[in-house]
Amino acid sequence: MTIEYDGTDFSGFQRQRNQMTVQEAIETAAGRIEGRPVTVVVAGRTDAGVHAMAQVISFTTARDLSPEIWVRALNDLLPPTIAAREAWHYDGPFNPRYRAITRVYRYTLRDGPTRTAIGRQYVWHVAGILDVEAMDRALRHLIGTHDFSSFSGRSAGPRRSPVRTITSAYCRRDDGHIVVEIAANAFLPHMVRNIVGTIVPIGRGTADADSIRDVLERRDRSAAGPTAPPHGLCLVRVHFGERQ
Amino acid sequence: MTIEYDGTDFSGFQRQRNQMTVQEAIETAAGRIEGRPVTVVVAGRTDAGVHAMAQVISFTTARDLSPEIWVRALNDLLPPTIAAREAWHYDGPFNPRYRAITRVYRYTLRDGPTRTAIGRQYVWHVAGILDVEAMDRALRHLIGTHDFSSFSGRSAGPRRSPVRTITSAYCRRDDGHIVVEIAANAFLPHMVRNIVGTIVPIGRGTADADSIRDVLERRDRSAAGPTAPPHGLCLVRVHFGERQ
Repeated sequence: MTIEYDGTDFSGFQRQRNQMTVQEAIETAAGRIEGRPVTVVVAGRTDAGVHAMAQVISFTTARDLSPEIWVRALNDLLPPTIAAREAWHYDGPFNPRYRAITRVYRYTLRDGPTRTAIGRQYVWHVAGILDVEAMDRALRHLIGTHDFSSFSGRSAGPRRSPVRTITSAYCRRDDGHIVVEIAANAFLPHMVRNIVGTIVPIGRGTADADSIRDVLERRDRSAAGPTAPPHGLCLVRVHFGERQ
Repeated sequence: MTIEYDGTDFSGFQRQRNQMTVQEAIETAAGRIEGRPVTVVVAGRTDAGVHAMAQVISFTTARDLSPEIWVRALNDLLPPTIAAREAWHYDGPFNPRYRAITRVYRYTLRDGPTRTAIGRQYVWHVAGILDVEAMDRALRHLIGTHDFSSFSGRSAGPRRSPVRTITSAYCRRDDGHIVVEIAANAFLPHMVRNIVGTIVPIGRGTADADSIRDVLERRDRSAAGPTAPPHGLCLVRVHFGERQ
């Protein structure tokens, strides 16, 4: 099922005690329809305040309801901040976390001297004028398979690889906004927000576009810029394929 | 000064006792900068829940601050739901309500079976698929100078004319949304929302596009459709000129 949500008031996707999470809201609604507890599996766990346009979840159902009925019934029960968009039946287990081969995240900024009010929940306002071409050039250095430790919010730990493959990355102006879109096989914690926090100084001219190569090669979080705020970030697409 | 606001949590623009209004928020912030009470005059009073991208307000100041400083200082004090965008000095009195010659309102809808979560605060979701061409044809019958009593939320009363001039009106699909935009010298209460509530049944095919001419000619509120919800409505532009 694809799910859209406004992450503003959620403590992220993943269920946590005493926190309002997207997972808990969906499991509560789906459990009411299913008539017994439902556990949801997700393609990309998003952090607190991060949005999703087409998050992909799966769960097992014993009820004989069509995908369309599931969507309608869930939308009747979910809060207005979460919407079920599309659903499919899949025979057998389907774990979107392992089946997803590409996740696409979009980060939306706005520059200029004055902040906005409409849509402010989805856009990071940066004072001043940003050089979007320089930010775009910087992003292109990140395309490929690299150790992204410099952009990881947490140390990967001995068992986990900090290597990811970015297949596409660009920055451009679009309808008054600045859009950063990055596609990768998977992302390290805070990776997109740390990349955005590193290219904004490049857009301001205080760092050179090519300097991001050195940041990447350092494999050290302290080499990169600060973490951009969560509310500009949105999971926009997940691509699936057969696991190698 | 042009002001942008998200009307979701406001009881409209105009100050009311024990209600959170845009006017009170602006007057409070401006009064702190001015050092004495400030009274704000507005081009288009918007109802509870209605947004504005470029509302125009004016107030009198005795302080020697540049327009840019006013914008910056107000944005520091205003809630995130209101943003000052641009300001100008004008020598002598300037009442935007009387100087405005055209107001442009936009109503944003979304059709299709499933609702959305991101941006839901600004869009009215209508289930089913709407015939946007039919809605556009209906709107064109309203262009010109007419008695719009059929679309007025309140009786105009003996002293007030229900005649307004619509200079432009269209409906089109734009980036997944359906946008209705209407420009007029001025609007009667709820006029745009009542027009939208009348053309949606036309979009659904339950009424003919030309039927809106009869609705207009009846000069009776009961001839038109229901009032569309406020959250799809936004004041997008105000044009000024010399008063005739």
